[in-house]
Order: sequence, then C-alpha cells, then structure tokens
Amino acid sequence: MSVHTDQPSVTVLGLGPMGRALAGAFLDAGVRTTVWNRTPGRDAELIARGAVPASSPEEAVSAAPLTVVCVVNYDASDVVLRQDAVTAALKGRTVVNLSADTPERARDTAGWAGRHGVRYLDGAIMTPTPTIGTDDAVFLHSGPAELYREHRPVLAALGGSHTHLGEEAGRAAAYDIALLDIFWTSMAGYAHALAVARAEGVTATELAPFAQGIAAILPPLFAEFAADADAGTYSGELNPITSAASTMAHVVHASEAHGIDASVMRVIEGQARRVIALGHGTDGFTRVAEMVARR
Amino acid sequence: MSVHTDQPSVTVLGLGPMGRALAGAFLDAGVRTTVWNRTPGRDAELIARGAVPASSPEEAVSAAPLTVVCVVNYDASDVVLRQDAVTAALKGRTVVNLSADTPERARDTAGWAGRHGVRYLDGAIMTPTPTIGTDDAVFLHSGPAELYREHRPVLAALGGSHTHLGEEAGRAAAYDIALLDIFWTSMAGYAHALAVARAEGVTATELAPFAQGIAAILPPLFAEFAADADAGTYSGELNPITSAASTMAHVVHASEAHGIDASVMRVIEGQARRVIALGHGTDGFTRVAEMVARR
Repeated sequence: MSVHTDQPSVTVLGLGPMGRALAGAFLDAGVRTTVWNRTPGRDAELIARGAVPASSPEEAVSAAPLTVVCVVNYDASDVVLRQDAVTAALKGRTVVNLSADTPERARDTAGWAGRHGVRYLDGAIMTPTPTIGTDDAVFLHSGPAELYREHRPVLAALGGSHTHLGEEAGRAAAYDIALLDIFWTSMAGYAHALAVARAEGVTATELAPFAQGIAAILPPLFAEFAADADAGTYSGELNPITSAASTMAHVVHASEAHGIDASVMRVIEGQARRVIALGHGTDGFTRVAEMVARR
Repeated sequence: MSVHTDQPSVTVLGLGPMGRALAGAFLDAGVRTTVWNRTPGRDAELIARGAVPASSPEEAVSAAPLTVVCVVNYDASDVVLRQDAVTAALKGRTVVNLSADTPERARDTAGWAGRHGVRYLDGAIMTPTPTIGTDDAVFLHSGPAELYREHRPVLAALGGSHTHLGEEAGRAAAYDIALLDIFWTSMAGYAHALAVARAEGVTATELAPFAQGIAAILPPLFAEFAADADAGTYSGELNPITSAASTMAHVVHASEAHGIDASVMRVIEGQARRVIALGHGTDGFTRVAEMVARR
C-alpha cells in the first residue's frame, strides 16, 4: 500500500489562498502532499516546492489516507466529494473538511460520509491565511475523538493550536459561525466608526490607537458577560441597558447629522429598546442574547 | 479669594456612579472637592470621605475655579449650567463637561460658554467606572490648549491617561461617538453569538475563550485597515468583501435556522452586497466606511 509509507502523506483539495497555505505548511513540515484544484493552474508554485499534482479528485484522494478539503463552502465540497468515483476512492479513508459553512451543512456531510464508509472530521480555520504554519493559527475540529487523535500528528504540520470540540460533527462550524458573527459585527462597527470620524475631521490613523484601546477592553468583558449569560442574570449594575440605549441613540444621531447611514446601530438600539420594553431596563445589554432567540 | 488656596479644589456636578467615582478620585488625591447632585442623598459617602456638600449648583460652582460636570447627557447639563445664577457664578471659571453626548452638543455648549465668559473644556470618559483613579482610566479632552494645560494637574487626580485632541470643542465627543460605535456594535455581535452558540448547545463559558481570541486579533487589523482607509485603497487581497459577504450569509442562515433574529447581520451583509454591487467586490470589507457616507 503506497499510502502507508513511513513518510506521512496528505491530499489537499482546493487551492485558493487558504488551500495553498495549508498545502505549503504540509510541504514545509515534510509531509508528502498531493494537490488538486477544480480550476487548473493553481498548483505551479506548490509543485516547485515538491507537491504531487493529481489529474482528478479521485486520483488525489487515493494518494493519501487523509484528505483535507478547503473550498469556498459546502456546495463546492459536495460537488467534489459526492462524485461516485471520489466517494468510492474515499471509502475507508479520512476527510477533514476545513471549508466554511453552517453547522447544518457539516452535519449533513458527516451523514453522507457515514453512509459511504468515509471517515469524517469537520473543522474550521479561525485565523487568516498568513497565520497558517505559524504559532498564531487556530483550528477547531469536531467528529470522532479517536479519528482526531489518529490524524492529529499530521494536522500538527499546519501549526498553531488545534482544539477538538466534541464528537458532534456540527460543533466546529457552530463555534466558527459564532466567532465570525463577533468578528464581522465588530468590523462593521469599526468601518462605521471610520466614516463618523472622517465626517468629524478625524482620520482613521488618528482614531486607530483609541479603537485598539476599545478592542483591548473586550476580552475581560467577554469573560465577565459569559458567566452572566450562562447564569441568566445579565447584570446591568455597572452599565444598565437604558444607559447603553441612550449612548446608541447618540451614535445614530451623530451619524445621521452627517448623512451617514446608521442602520446597523438603529437595529442594535432597537434590540436594546425591546429588552427595556420587555421589562429588563436595569439588566445589562447582553440580555439581548435572550431577546433575539425569543419565539 | 477662598477659591485660590494652596490646596487645589474642584467642584463635581452630578453624582451618579461615574460622578461619585470622579469625586472619590479627587478626594483620594487630596483635592478639596465640593459636590452637588440634582437629586439629594447621593453625597453621604463622599461627605464621610471629606467632600463639601453644596446646597445649590451656583453655590457649588462658586467653591472652586474648576467644575467637572458628569450627568446623563447634555440636556441634563444644560438644565444645570444654563440657569442664570449658575451661569453668572461660572463667569471667569472653568467647566470641564465629561457628560456623554454628540459633537454637535459639545460645540453648542462651547458656544454658550463663550457667550457668557465661561472657560470651557469638553471631555469624554472612555472606560468604565471602576477604572477611575487607576492607571486604566482613559480621558479625552478638547478645547483651548492653554486651558487644558492649566487644569491638567488637577485632572491628573482622576488617574489614567488624558489626551488633548485639539482646540475644536467637538473633537472629544467625535472620538467618543466613534469609539462607542465600535464598542456597542462589537457587544451586539457578542450577544448575538451567545444566542447562536446556545442554540447549538455551546455555553457562553465554552465560547468565551475563543471569543477573546477573536477580540485579540482586532487591534492589529484596526491599525492595518486605518492606513488603508486613509489611503482610500481598502485592500481586499487577503479577504475580499465577496468572501466576507458569503461568511455573513452563513451567519444569517445558521441563526435563522434556529429562529434567532439575524437582523443586525442582515443589515451588515446588505452593506457588503451594496459595496459589491457598486463594483468593489475585490476590495476589503472596510470599503463599507465609504459606502455608508455616500450621498
């Protein structure tokens, strides 16, 4: 069996910027790496670094016991993996799907894998492309713990921290979605703040050090509010949601006075006002976590 | 003149949690502190620590060359400061208004002060009550530089960092609004993420360490995107807005699959889609800063 030589080996399907970074990290770590991409021509640099090109996805997945998939979403991974020839070639082998999508899609893919004798781990990459292969990379995994343990040594070539979040296939995607929710909402706040600052004659470069100061106060607050949210207390002792809503109204007013669209903050303020209307005005803002899930 | 003894002195108007923290920090630093609050009974602990109670705002402001105002907003500070007796008593004295409101209101108050011979600095407190008097406090100031220099030694009693942002009265409030925009939008992302995580069986306490990891990657990104925004380039090389929008759609879909209101992310995704529709699909997400300000 050529797939079980002493040298560890892996197949990477998908050679976008992230897929290329993954393949590059495997190569740097001395892992025999077979690569394939639907659109040809993305593998030249990797081949120069020692990657083995495959002419089809079934040929690619046959070359190693472990296939790492990194494509745009699960529609794209389905198109590749659910071809009969590929599914047949994957029987008894392991797929780690690091593409981004919803927990529902991860669970669906785990179900497909189970029906076809494909060993399946789901995963998510939480950090940008340049972190791959470095200590800064963050990978989340879910699926059978035993399977994770088996492939952990090869996955370690990707650098950074790897966390197995549990056996339930959707778990990594659930964390991914929640964390991307935080990330993009925060970025939306920053982009909007840059617009407001500019209208007030403040450059982004002038604002940035203070914006970084705001980001720096978030981690301890996140921890504090987490305990509060799990306990269902949502304490507003230091900052009641009535006060938060008043601040939000200032942001809306100051933005719109400059003709700047404040629709994101309008929705957020509306959520805070709804919490107040529901009788929780002395609670903290994080009570919103409960309100948005009300049926 | 009793107001110019060797001991520095200050008046604090407004004894909510933040006003009490400010007065307490002045007392701790050995500053003679006169206090007044519209609703009586808030000064007992401060009096026990050496504060001098005033029976009216005009009496309060007459007791020191510097009055620090910290009330809920500028409607509230107007009600106190723009009474004839108070305005008359303030003539030739200095007001530092640390209440939160919009740049417009700060400029309006500076105008009122100018017309009545009141020396005026505007300001903003960027950190929570417990930071006052500690190294962690962050104060922003705007108004005449000379006036700031004159009162800087007494304001230093409040601890932390003090930054004079410029002569334009609205400058501190402009930074305040932009930073609160970032803060509350980020918190809205976090609260929403807690709801999504919970629906997926992930507790807030489980999510929190990873959420803190996301917050930790924001400061370097804020700096990077600031230079980009000032240059008008909004580079999307590592993460084009088309990819961001696709991620946002996953957040919306995963939320709504659980019956969770995703209206904040829907608006954010809509902004990203609008940037793409305007022909900037290969730019980064921060191009939204320009889009929201379009007329």
